[in-house]
Amino acid sequence: MIPIITAFEQSPDRGKGQARDMRVRWALEEVGQPYDVRLVSFREMKEPAHRAVQPFGQIPTYEEGDLALFESGAIVFHIAESHAGLLPDDPHARARATAWMFAAVSTIEPPIVEREQVRYAEGDKPWYADRLPILEDRIRVRLDDLSARLGDAEWLDGAFSAGDLLMVMVLRRLEGIGMLEEYPSLSAYVARGKARPAYQRAFAAQLAVFTAASTG
Amino acid sequence: MIPIITAFEQSPDRGKGQARDMRVRWALEEVGQPYDVRLVSFREMKEPAHRAVQPFGQIPTYEEGDLALFESGAIVFHIAESHAGLLPDDPHARARATAWMFAAVSTIEPPIVEREQVRYAEGDKPWYADRLPILEDRIRVRLDDLSARLGDAEWLDGAFSAGDLLMVMVLRRLEGIGMLEEYPSLSAYVARGKARPAYQRAFAAQLAVFTAASTG
Repeated sequence: MIPIITAFEQSPDRGKGQARDMRVRWALEEVGQPYDVRLVSFREMKEPAHRAVQPFGQIPTYEEGDLALFESGAIVFHIAESHAGLLPDDPHARARATAWMFAAVSTIEPPIVEREQVRYAEGDKPWYADRLPILEDRIRVRLDDLSARLGDAEWLDGAFSAGDLLMVMVLRRLEGIGMLEEYPSLSAYVARGKARPAYQRAFAAQLAVFTAASTG
Repeated sequence: MIPIITAFEQSPDRGKGQARDMRVRWALEEVGQPYDVRLVSFREMKEPAHRAVQPFGQIPTYEEGDLALFESGAIVFHIAESHAGLLPDDPHARARATAWMFAAVSTIEPPIVEREQVRYAEGDKPWYADRLPILEDRIRVRLDDLSARLGDAEWLDGAFSAGDLLMVMVLRRLEGIGMLEEYPSLSAYVARGKARPAYQRAFAAQLAVFTAASTG
């Protein structure tokens, strides 16, 4: 049974791989699971057929026979639970990897998304310039703690796990604004993630959607 | 082995049960697992001993023998995986319940926390009044979709699960500002969660910390 994921028909970031399907593609590549992709337009995402699987009208979704899932964190977890390679066998180490998955999407990602969001939604407001440093300092509070915990380690807790996969993807959202560069150990951590062959296959696959659309 | 969780020594919300230890207490009560609580001060939370378990200097943590966990979502998941009562047995239903857990903490909670946070951090800024409706509309976008999905159902996907537990706790953060009341089905959903005996035992236990501190 080949799972089918959804992704944006038109890449909002021009193939930079910041959309959340990239997390799922990477996880599937790590475990060696082939997959199909169904591209959806921004209009289709908000229609009842898509919302039946994704109540918030977003991508990605994951369909595998009778199973239909949403939330990239939960999809990555399902892939990690169903295949070897993304979660340790030891139950305690497995629970700690899960903690890093939740930390990535509920502790580190929200202030990063907030900064992106106000740029789009409030970039023309008179308060934008005054608020930007406040938002960036909130991100730094988290990055300070994360880099302190990572220290000189290669990954967050032993071997590469689904927790690292989500954390690398969340930190990648800072690319291009110069903030990740303030933390050399976190920059190197993200670079290690991106150097993985599975990451590179996933990145190429999502880029191909954009290049095909832009030349088609 | 009785697990030990951490909670605030001094309740920031005067015992209203909005701190994240409440999620873990409720989960433990649902599965009938006794637990101990270690109270930590705001100063202790930021010290190395606590950060060794909670890298971001927050509560709750969960310690059970050799296992030390952080992130309330991951702790609730660990409790749900280790005991009957919070996740369905069917693997597909179980994966969907996990999706609701991630949805609660990474899709619904961030805009709610953002509204709280700007009130504390930017309540005295000249832009606060102009921004508040923007923040509240972002919450409504999510609540519109969530209430559409819930419909007339009792819980989000079949029987009560850890996904409902986290979602009810996240929605409870809206109490007192009149926004949840715009959604009668979500208000009733939260009321159903709060009516559960396990919730009530957990709420009483966290309230007792506050009343003991305030009369002690």
